[in-house]
Amino acid sequence: MSRRAYVHRISAAAPDDVSGIEAAIAAGRIDPKGIVAIFGKTEGNGCVNDFARGFATQSLGLMLQRYMSAEAAHAVCLVMSGGTEGGMSPHWTVFERRDTDETATGAALAIGRTRTPVLPFPALGRVAEVDMVAEGVRAAMADAGIADPADVHFVQIKCPLLTLQRIGQAEAMGGTVATRDTLKSMGLSRAASALGVAVALGEVSRDAITDDRIASDWSLWSGRASCSSGIELLDHEIVVIGTSPAWVGPLTVDHAVMADGIDVEPVRAALRRLGFSADGQLAPAERDRLVALLSKAEASHDGRLRGNRHTMLDDSDISATRHARAFVCGALAGLVGHAEIYVSGGAEHQGPDGGGPVAVIAARA
Amino acid sequence: MSRRAYVHRISAAAPDDVSGIEAAIAAGRIDPKGIVAIFGKTEGNGCVNDFARGFATQSLGLMLQRYMSAEAAHAVCLVMSGGTEGGMSPHWTVFERRDTDETATGAALAIGRTRTPVLPFPALGRVAEVDMVAEGVRAAMADAGIADPADVHFVQIKCPLLTLQRIGQAEAMGGTVATRDTLKSMGLSRAASALGVAVALGEVSRDAITDDRIASDWSLWSGRASCSSGIELLDHEIVVIGTSPAWVGPLTVDHAVMADGIDVEPVRAALRRLGFSADGQLAPAERDRLVALLSKAEASHDGRLRGNRHTMLDDSDISATRHARAFVCGALAGLVGHAEIYVSGGAEHQGPDGGGPVAVIAARA
Amino acid sequence: MSRRAYVHRISAAAPDDVSGIEAAIAAGRIDPKGIVAIFGKTEGNGCVNDFARGFATQSLGLMLQRYMSAEAAHAVCLVMSGGTEGGMSPHWTVFERRDTDETATGAALAIGRTRTPVLPFPALGRVAEVDMVAEGVRAAMADAGIADPADVHFVQIKCPLLTLQRIGQAEAMGGTVATRDTLKSMGLSRAASALGVAVALGEVSRDAITDDRIASDWSLWSGRASCSSGIELLDHEIVVIGTSPAWVGPLTVDHAVMADGIDVEPVRAALRRLGFSADGQLAPAERDRLVALLSKAEASHDGRLRGNRHTMLDDSDISATRHARAFVCGALAGLVGHAEIYVSGGAEHQGPDGGGPVAVIAARA
Amino acid sequence: MSRRAYVHRISAAAPDDVSGIEAAIAAGRIDPKGIVAIFGKTEGNGCVNDFARGFATQSLGLMLQRYMSAEAAHAVCLVMSGGTEGGMSPHWTVFERRDTDETATGAALAIGRTRTPVLPFPALGRVAEVDMVAEGVRAAMADAGIADPADVHFVQIKCPLLTLQRIGQAEAMGGTVATRDTLKSMGLSRAASALGVAVALGEVSRDAITDDRIASDWSLWSGRASCSSGIELLDHEIVVIGTSPAWVGPLTVDHAVMADGIDVEPVRAALRRLGFSADGQLAPAERDRLVALLSKAEASHDGRLRGNRHTMLDDSDISATRHARAFVCGALAGLVGHAEIYVSGGAEHQGPDGGGPVAVIAARA
Repeated sequence: MSRRAYVHRISAAAPDDVSGIEAAIAAGRIDPKGIVAIFGKTEGNGCVNDFARGFATQSLGLMLQRYMSAEAAHAVCLVMSGGTEGGMSPHWTVFERRDTDETATGAALAIGRTRTPVLPFPALGRVAEVDMVAEGVRAAMADAGIADPADVHFVQIKCPLLTLQRIGQAEAMGGTVATRDTLKSMGLSRAASALGVAVALGEVSRDAITDDRIASDWSLWSGRASCSSGIELLDHEIVVIGTSPAWVGPLTVDHAVMADGIDVEPVRAALRRLGFSADGQLAPAERDRLVALLSKAEASHDGRLRGNRHTMLDDSDISATRHARAFVCGALAGLVGHAEIYVSGGAEHQGPDGGGPVAVIAARA
Repeated sequence: MSRRAYVHRISAAAPDDVSGIEAAIAAGRIDPKGIVAIFGKTEGNGCVNDFARGFATQSLGLMLQRYMSAEAAHAVCLVMSGGTEGGMSPHWTVFERRDTDETATGAALAIGRTRTPVLPFPALGRVAEVDMVAEGVRAAMADAGIADPADVHFVQIKCPLLTLQRIGQAEAMGGTVATRDTLKSMGLSRAASALGVAVALGEVSRDAITDDRIASDWSLWSGRASCSSGIELLDHEIVVIGTSPAWVGPLTVDHAVMADGIDVEPVRAALRRLGFSADGQLAPAERDRLVALLSKAEASHDGRLRGNRHTMLDDSDISATRHARAFVCGALAGLVGHAEIYVSGGAEHQGPDGGGPVAVIAARA
Repeated sequence: MSRRAYVHRISAAAPDDVSGIEAAIAAGRIDPKGIVAIFGKTEGNGCVNDFARGFATQSLGLMLQRYMSAEAAHAVCLVMSGGTEGGMSPHWTVFERRDTDETATGAALAIGRTRTPVLPFPALGRVAEVDMVAEGVRAAMADAGIADPADVHFVQIKCPLLTLQRIGQAEAMGGTVATRDTLKSMGLSRAASALGVAVALGEVSRDAITDDRIASDWSLWSGRASCSSGIELLDHEIVVIGTSPAWVGPLTVDHAVMADGIDVEPVRAALRRLGFSADGQLAPAERDRLVALLSKAEASHDGRLRGNRHTMLDDSDISATRHARAFVCGALAGLVGHAEIYVSGGAEHQGPDGGGPVAVIAARA
Repeated sequence: MSRRAYVHRISAAAPDDVSGIEAAIAAGRIDPKGIVAIFGKTEGNGCVNDFARGFATQSLGLMLQRYMSAEAAHAVCLVMSGGTEGGMSPHWTVFERRDTDETATGAALAIGRTRTPVLPFPALGRVAEVDMVAEGVRAAMADAGIADPADVHFVQIKCPLLTLQRIGQAEAMGGTVATRDTLKSMGLSRAASALGVAVALGEVSRDAITDDRIASDWSLWSGRASCSSGIELLDHEIVVIGTSPAWVGPLTVDHAVMADGIDVEPVRAALRRLGFSADGQLAPAERDRLVALLSKAEASHDGRLRGNRHTMLDDSDISATRHARAFVCGALAGLVGHAEIYVSGGAEHQGPDGGGPVAVIAARA
């Protein structure tokens, strides 16, 4: 008795377009009762007032409830990452797991998930959020049957943000919040969540983290964390992706860390470790084996890319996160040959400043 | 007696920051009297109300007049392409030519330029603009001493646009304009200009072009045209870049056509023809030889990139041209290893739909 | 036996915040079975990729189904107008009607509604849409029991728009569409719908309307039409608001036409006809009687406001519709003393160029 | 021997369109040697990357140098306020003063100006900036011959902002800056400057101001300060507008404080004190006497306008300052009957939270 992971990448025509998932269920490619998580790249601005994420979440929830109880549907981790800038294509990545009689013969893709308790608004962006997330990552690893942090290749977290109303509630109860700038609260929440991953995976010592180093000391980072903040939740949804000898099937995963927004060579190396030739752009014949590319993007805080000035942080018309997603998606799509990839913005403590983690989920050659 | 071309790529800290050019003049690296053109990537939105272009043009003009007569300064082609999205870095590319006693021993980089007459507003985006530009390209080729269209690798054109005031003037004089939508006028002007290049270079037959095929029949295109529209001029500035046996020096140029926004392999092939190894990303040691990368970007009109939906044309917050520049710059920077490259938006008839021409100016190995 | 209209203005904390409506139902202020329409001012960009409208529509539909059958819920006209720029406050306006034994003693507020058939995409923005809407307005008048067009004071229409996918479908079936510019399709659909109202109310002769005058000849307009386009529907939802001697209750309605975006004096005159003093800004004591203010806003097409240049049509960062809503909401809020008002963008043929209709629903003094 | 002030409101067709000013000079309406200040409403985004302000400043400087020495031109205070949202019309307000033999018979409009020293970047947004500005205001009052702070009705200040490069310079020299967020630096600089005015005019005690109350304790404010920040200067330009018995001529000035963005009644009261009837909107016949309307706009920090939620601070696509300018301009234009008015964004400590000062310059009846 073992477990087997399935990963389905499905195009979406709109934030509420779940028809592709339902078609896969109808065709028997997806067994809905095994769905543990759905990642969505949705086409809003990815910032505070991006309601496409909530719309997608509501639509996915309604869809799931057509196949399972409301309670079971609620347990599915729905991680919507807003913003499909440049050529990035809106899509769903459905993570499914099934029990199987197949005998495990080596490590295969393993998936675990959990939800944390509701985060008190004053804890957002502070050490208390780091601790809550670290505990959640450990719970998700246990859910995946992964004991060694080295076998974890990606941790996707959806974390909450502050709105003016939430700040008002916190202050009415005598609390203080880490920031009164709602857009900035998104970054602080991602930052604390990423450090929670780093602590759980042993990448950063818990002792090194204080409130004032969160979203400030960029020398602290995780090479496997990916955090998105959204208005539509108050807790954290955590999905751990790695490999485990207790799982079977053709899928596996590896990861790379980009040092900056155009540092594609580590990703190429990861592809090669997974058996892709990856000379130049992935050839069409190889693209089918590439099931999902998950990555983070951000503008470097010093306003420089390899010594040249960039203008992302000085643009008051377009959020820097939107610039960065478009740009990094271009770099990665130039490597893998298509743009139905998951590039999530705001990579605070997720990879080095200006860079970010990349996970490659692929079928073995 | 022959001519030698110099190309200087110089960073800009702001649209009016000409200090890098003046430093190069002071150091003797640039002889101001030989400057024939300056291309600028400036950090506005690249659309109708982008005054950074005009500001740069005014600042460059004032700078030039510190070294030459107003008349000579006015003859320099100043082509400002607005929009440095993603990691793209604002910079100037200064084209200079000098007479020399060196004996030509083979083809080298050659540069020619011209300005057309003022374009009547009703002609914008129509066949009359195509013809005016085609004649201008021929004049610029003659200025460069290039006889064979096959030796032309890039034609940069700066063309005018319509504003509400200009439309009013045209209509007050009894004329009609091709569009009353000012943003759309930018695309029409680029489209007609690109077809003018295609006619001059023999890529498209003049007979094939009618008013209603301009910015409509995307099967007509030039693989070497790059057109930017701007509010700050009423005529066309044309710069032809190619090779000629009458020129000397270490510089040369080649070009490629991207079939879509992530089609970097033809660019890699051009780099290899110029002696770069270009396995993966250009290694740091090779980057110095790459003097300038000039390219175009646009969103494909069918809303698809290699079969996947993109959302650039449906985004009412960010112009599709801004999305496309960020994305294509990412793809090209992933190839060449830095983002101080010239990616100009709006590639109507400049390369196939969704793709665009790329020129590589490099020193020989 | 007569009918009585109720109008409830209820704040919304987000596009999916229907809690205020449910609280009113729970408190007995709203009887859900009588709800005929809900207008929403939702906080998206009001343009093509505004998914807040769809999110609100889905959320309202789910809420309604908690009180009535799916069929009955579907019959409620949900008209979401995106964009709460400036100080405009997101809110719902719930229109309810009840049968009553009260004897009518004079005209009172009357409400009718209907939905048209699905609009074929090639008909959008053309005379066929005008005719479809005109017929729909007559059906909604009949539903309201209003026989004389002079008793109609506001007609709210929600109409469809084109997306790239819809254009593709139309073209795949051999059809042509009125425009391939998705943002422009919103304007064309509003334009044709407004002319449909004008025809039904006798404001414009049907003979005067041809395809090429739609969204072009601004001398044709309705003083009572208000049209919003949205991605979330394929037909038209039509709500007619007027007065009828067959209805009872304290509510009534009047309307005004603003000649431009700051022409508040006709609105002041309408307020006075309804018994408000309206010297200067409405005093707090008078504001309670003002139940709803419904209006349209647009940038004048000649780029002028009372002789001075405006820049709304030349701004490539912010859609002109967003500028106009913020600005006109400021002018109207300055008059009535609060900004929880309904200002809908894009007033093609809805009032004169640059102006728009305004309806005032109020309780009698 | 006395002085007389002239104020000229002149439309601008673009940020570099100084033709209207030159026409007034040519016609003898303006004597260039008496120009002390030019306020511009320019059509950029009014935020960090708004180069229209710098372009206007450069263009005005070039124009002035055609009539006076470079030194004299440099002494003219050029205060460019970016952002003409909604129907607001780009224009110049030229302040001129002349010596005259007329005998003063009562108070008339008086204008003074000064420039402060260059502000060290670490001082920006801190008490050191407050003190520098307070001293500057006193100097400008002396220049105007105004002894009593009660006779000051408006103080316009142009203050610097931080860019990433400036932050880098400060930090390279061992300094710390008040914020590393460039957009936020604009608000901090305006905030400190406004408190400098409040101190100079006796509205706020110097003792009440500490670094952490700047841009934080909104109970501290000036009812006469108007501050704009811009990338194009490193010091402060200060213009004081008031009345003085030493000046002559038909012009005078009064001011009002709006408590929120739609609080137009205090402005109406000021108009009435100046002899306007101001029942409803200013009638066309009265508008000529209204020479200039100068005001500030901002989104209230609690996200509420008279109890209703606004969304300006949660909009990640449009800066809250742009929303607020469009909205407040609508409210004021609804009152005075045109939109060629000066509404400047970001009113930190300039009037109460969400409101702002308004100055009315008018010819006596």
